[in-house]
Amino acid sequence: MADLPGIVIMGASGRMGQMLAQTVLQSDKARLVGCVERPGHPWIGRDMGEAMGSAPLGLCLTDDAIAAIARAQAVIDFTTPEATVATATLTAQARAVHVIGTTGFGPDHLQRIKAAARHAVIVRAGNMSLGVNLLVQLTRKVAAALDADFDIEVVEAHHRHKVDAPSGTALMLGQAAAEGRGVALSEMSERGRDGITGERARGAIGFSAIRGGDIVGEHDVIFAGMGERIVLRHVATDRAIFARGALRAALWGQDRKPGEYDMLDVLGL
Amino acid sequence: MADLPGIVIMGASGRMGQMLAQTVLQSDKARLVGCVERPGHPWIGRDMGEAMGSAPLGLCLTDDAIAAIARAQAVIDFTTPEATVATATLTAQARAVHVIGTTGFGPDHLQRIKAAARHAVIVRAGNMSLGVNLLVQLTRKVAAALDADFDIEVVEAHHRHKVDAPSGTALMLGQAAAEGRGVALSEMSERGRDGITGERARGAIGFSAIRGGDIVGEHDVIFAGMGERIVLRHVATDRAIFARGALRAALWGQDRKPGEYDMLDVLGL
Amino acid sequence: MADLPGIVIMGASGRMGQMLAQTVLQSDKARLVGCVERPGHPWIGRDMGEAMGSAPLGLCLTDDAIAAIARAQAVIDFTTPEATVATATLTAQARAVHVIGTTGFGPDHLQRIKAAARHAVIVRAGNMSLGVNLLVQLTRKVAAALDADFDIEVVEAHHRHKVDAPSGTALMLGQAAAEGRGVALSEMSERGRDGITGERARGAIGFSAIRGGDIVGEHDVIFAGMGERIVLRHVATDRAIFARGALRAALWGQDRKPGEYDMLDVLGL
Amino acid sequence: MADLPGIVIMGASGRMGQMLAQTVLQSDKARLVGCVERPGHPWIGRDMGEAMGSAPLGLCLTDDAIAAIARAQAVIDFTTPEATVATATLTAQARAVHVIGTTGFGPDHLQRIKAAARHAVIVRAGNMSLGVNLLVQLTRKVAAALDADFDIEVVEAHHRHKVDAPSGTALMLGQAAAEGRGVALSEMSERGRDGITGERARGAIGFSAIRGGDIVGEHDVIFAGMGERIVLRHVATDRAIFARGALRAALWGQDRKPGEYDMLDVLGL
Repeated sequence: MADLPGIVIMGASGRMGQMLAQTVLQSDKARLVGCVERPGHPWIGRDMGEAMGSAPLGLCLTDDAIAAIARAQAVIDFTTPEATVATATLTAQARAVHVIGTTGFGPDHLQRIKAAARHAVIVRAGNMSLGVNLLVQLTRKVAAALDADFDIEVVEAHHRHKVDAPSGTALMLGQAAAEGRGVALSEMSERGRDGITGERARGAIGFSAIRGGDIVGEHDVIFAGMGERIVLRHVATDRAIFARGALRAALWGQDRKPGEYDMLDVLGL
Repeated sequence: MADLPGIVIMGASGRMGQMLAQTVLQSDKARLVGCVERPGHPWIGRDMGEAMGSAPLGLCLTDDAIAAIARAQAVIDFTTPEATVATATLTAQARAVHVIGTTGFGPDHLQRIKAAARHAVIVRAGNMSLGVNLLVQLTRKVAAALDADFDIEVVEAHHRHKVDAPSGTALMLGQAAAEGRGVALSEMSERGRDGITGERARGAIGFSAIRGGDIVGEHDVIFAGMGERIVLRHVATDRAIFARGALRAALWGQDRKPGEYDMLDVLGL
Repeated sequence: MADLPGIVIMGASGRMGQMLAQTVLQSDKARLVGCVERPGHPWIGRDMGEAMGSAPLGLCLTDDAIAAIARAQAVIDFTTPEATVATATLTAQARAVHVIGTTGFGPDHLQRIKAAARHAVIVRAGNMSLGVNLLVQLTRKVAAALDADFDIEVVEAHHRHKVDAPSGTALMLGQAAAEGRGVALSEMSERGRDGITGERARGAIGFSAIRGGDIVGEHDVIFAGMGERIVLRHVATDRAIFARGALRAALWGQDRKPGEYDMLDVLGL
Repeated sequence: MADLPGIVIMGASGRMGQMLAQTVLQSDKARLVGCVERPGHPWIGRDMGEAMGSAPLGLCLTDDAIAAIARAQAVIDFTTPEATVATATLTAQARAVHVIGTTGFGPDHLQRIKAAARHAVIVRAGNMSLGVNLLVQLTRKVAAALDADFDIEVVEAHHRHKVDAPSGTALMLGQAAAEGRGVALSEMSERGRDGITGERARGAIGFSAIRGGDIVGEHDVIFAGMGERIVLRHVATDRAIFARGALRAALWGQDRKPGEYDMLDVLGL
C-alpha cells in the first residue's frame, strides 16, 4: 500500500474536490496523501473524512500546499485558473504529475502551464471522461467524412446552476467538427438563435444550450442531411466519471517524460 | 360524389398548396373544386394535375378568387396575412368555412378575421396536426401539476430553410406552459442563451432552436427537476399531417354556427 | 423536533434502505426513529450512521420490529412481499402509516394488505416518483384521445443488474394505455419481438427492454401514427426521487382515514 | 445526355422500384433506359410515368429482362433473392454494373453472386444510405475502443408493416460491434428480452425492436457504462436516401474492375 502513488487534491472541500477524494479512497491503485484548501477556509485543520460527514480518515485538510505537494506523486486540481497556475510551479518543482481539470484559462495562464510542463508531466483536459473524449474523436472523423450537405449542430443540456453557454465540452466538440471540415470554428459558429435569423448558412456549426434540474451533462452532435441524420450523443449521469478520469490520468502520468498531455493521450485514442 | 363538400385551395402552386390539393384528391369525403393563385402567376390557366407533374385533373388554376369561392363549401388557406384577410371577406360572403393555416398575423389582421367570423365559420391554428394540438394540452396540464422546482425548456428542430426562431409551434407550447403555471410568457422567456448567462432564473421557460437538413418539425417540452425529468415530444415526419388536419377542419366546420374556432375545437380535445 | 412524525425504515441496510434513511435524516419534516433488519443480519446492533460509513447517529439497527414500529408514526418498506405482509399487521396494530414500495405481490398478499388497510393508512405504489405517476396519467389520457391509428409502444431502459423485463413501471404504463383505450392489456401485449413476427397487430401495445450500465430508469410511451409521433418520456437519474416520494407519502398519510391509497392520491393528481 | 450511363430498374412497379425510377429521372448524371417487371405483372406494356400517376415518359415496363439489360450500363435491383441471382447472370454477361439492395440471401445465393462478380462489378449492401454505412464503421471503432464495462445495445424502430425483427441494419450494426470486440455475434446476442431474464450477461450485445406508424428507420447503438453512455444514432426520414445511394453505387461502379463491392467501397469510408 505504501508503494502506491500518493495523490494530493487541491480545493478538496468543494463538490468536485470531495468526489475526487472519495474516488482516490476507493481505488486500490493510489493513496490519498493530502487535501489542500486555501488559507482561511473553515475546513482547514479538520479531518477530511469527518468534514465530508463520513468516518475519520486520519488526514486533515491543510493550507500548506508546498508541504502537501512534496509528499505527492500526483496532484489533481479542479480549481480556478489563478490557483492552478500557482500550483503548476510547485508541482513542477516536486516533479509530481499535475492533472488539471480547471477551465477558463487565458493565454497568459496557458503560457505559464506550458513553462511548467518543461519540468514535469501535466495532463490537462476540459472534460476527463472517457466517453466525451471518444466523442470528440468521432466528431472529427464524421465531420471529415461528410460534406456541408450535412448541417452540424451541437446541443448540450446541463443543470440549472451552470452560468455559461455553450458548455466548454460543446465548444470542444464544435472545434473538433471544424477541424474535421478544415474550417475555423470562430467563422462558422451560429449561437443563440432567436428572432428572424434567416436561413441557416451552409457549413455553419450551430450551438444550443438547454438548462434544467440537476442534469449532469448531455451532448449531441447532429449531422442533418436530406432524408437522414446521424447523431453522436454522450450522456453523463454521475460526476464520478470525471474524477475517475482524473485519477486514471494521474496514474498514467507516472511513467512519462515531462510535457503537456491531454486525455486522448491518456486513453490511447 | 357531387354531394361531397367542395374545397378550394388558396395559393395552390406552393409546396403546402400542392400537398393540400393532393390530400383533398385522395379523400373520399371531399371534392377539389378550385385552385387559386395570385394574378400573374405562371400556373394560371394550366391544369392543376399537369402543373404538379401528374395526370391531368380537368381543373385549371385560376386567379378569380370570387368565382372559385362561390362554388366552395370550404376554403383552405396557407398563404400570407394580407391575402388571408382579403379571402376572409369573400369566404364570409359565400358562407363557406375558412380554414386558416397562415401565420404571422398582426392585431389589425386578427381584428378583420374576427369580423368575418360573425358571418361564417373560421378555423384558425398555427399548427393543424392532431399530435401538436394534443401536446399543447398536455403541456398546459403538466405545467399546472408541477411547480417551479421543475424547469421548463422547449426545444425545437426544423429544416435549414426556416428563417425564424423559435418556431410558432414552440411559442404555442411555451404559451401553454405559461398558462398552466399562471404566469406571462413574455416575462418568463429565456431565449438565445449564449455567453455568460448566469444561473437559470427560477420559473423561467427556456427556448432552443436546432436547424438542419430537411427536418419537418420536432418539439420537446422538458420538465427537468431534481433527479427526474418528464419530456413531452412531438415528431412530424410528413407535412401531409398539416394538410389532413386542415381538411378535417374543413369537414368539421360544415355543421357549425359562425364563429372563430381552433383545432382543439375540431379535435374535441 | 420531537413533534415531527417518527419514521421507521424496514430493510434499512439495503441500497434503497440506506437511501430512505438518508432522505429522512435530511428532512426537516420527519425524524428517523428506527432501522429494522431481519434477525441474524450482520448490521444488527450497529449504529446506523457508522454502518453506512458516516458519522454515528446514536440509533442502532434492530431486529425487534414490534418495538420499533410501536414508536413510529410511519413505516417505510421496500422489502419482499412476505416481509411486507407481516409488517402490515404490525403497522395496523400500531395505527402507523405503512408506505409500501415493495413489488411482486401475489393475490394472497394483496388480500392481506387489504385487510390491514381496514385499520390503518396504507400507501402502496410500484413507483413512488412524482414524474412517473404523472406519466401514468398522461398515458391514460393520450391513449383515450387517440384511436388505434396510433400504435402504442412502451420502451424502458434499466441498469445491467435488473433481472426482469419489462419493468414494473413499464407494465403500469401499458396498463394505463390499455385502460385509456378500453381494452385488456393481457390480450393486446406484444413483448419480446424477435424473428419473423409478422406485421404489427392493430391496437397492440408493444414493450421493449434495454439493459445497460447503471441506468436508473427511463420510460418512453410512444404513440406512432402516419406522419407524426407523440412520445411521453420519463427519465430518472437519482434513486432519491423514490425515497422522497415515499417520505412524502408517509407525511401525507398522517391525517387520513384508514384505507389503501396510491401515489395519485398522495400527489393529488 | 445520350452519353450518360443508362440505368435499368428491376421490380420497377414496387414502392422501392418507383422511388428508384424517380431518383434516376431527377438525376443529371444518369438516364433511365429500362423498367422491368416479372411476366404477367399488370403494369407490363404500360408507360412507366403514367403507371406511377405522373406524366408519360415514353418508356414502357417490360418483362424482357435480357433485352433491357443489354441496353444498360447499370442494373439496380431491390427484389427477391431468387430473382436477383438470375439477374446477376444476365448482368455479368452484359458487363453491366449490378447494384443489389435485395436482402435475405442464403449461402447458395451468395455463391452464385460471387461467381457473377468474376465477370462484372457487383455492389451489394443491406443498407445503401451514406449515414448507416458510416454508422457501421463508427460502431466497429467504438466497440474496439471500449471494453466490456460498456454494455452494447442496438435499438431499432420501423413502421408497422415490417415483418421481421431485428432489422437487417440492426444485425449489421451488431455484427460490426462484435467484430470491433473480437467476438462472435451469434454467441453474444440477447434478443427478445421478456420475463425473468436474469442479469445482463457481461459482453452481451442486446437488440430491441420498436414498431409503429410509418417510421422509415431509426437505429441506436448504445454503449452504456457506469456513469456515462455513448449513443450512435441514425435516423432515416425518406426512403429516397436508399435510392440515391443505389444510384451513387451504379455510377461509382462504371470504372471498376470486376468484383463484389459494398457501400463502404463506394463511399470511400
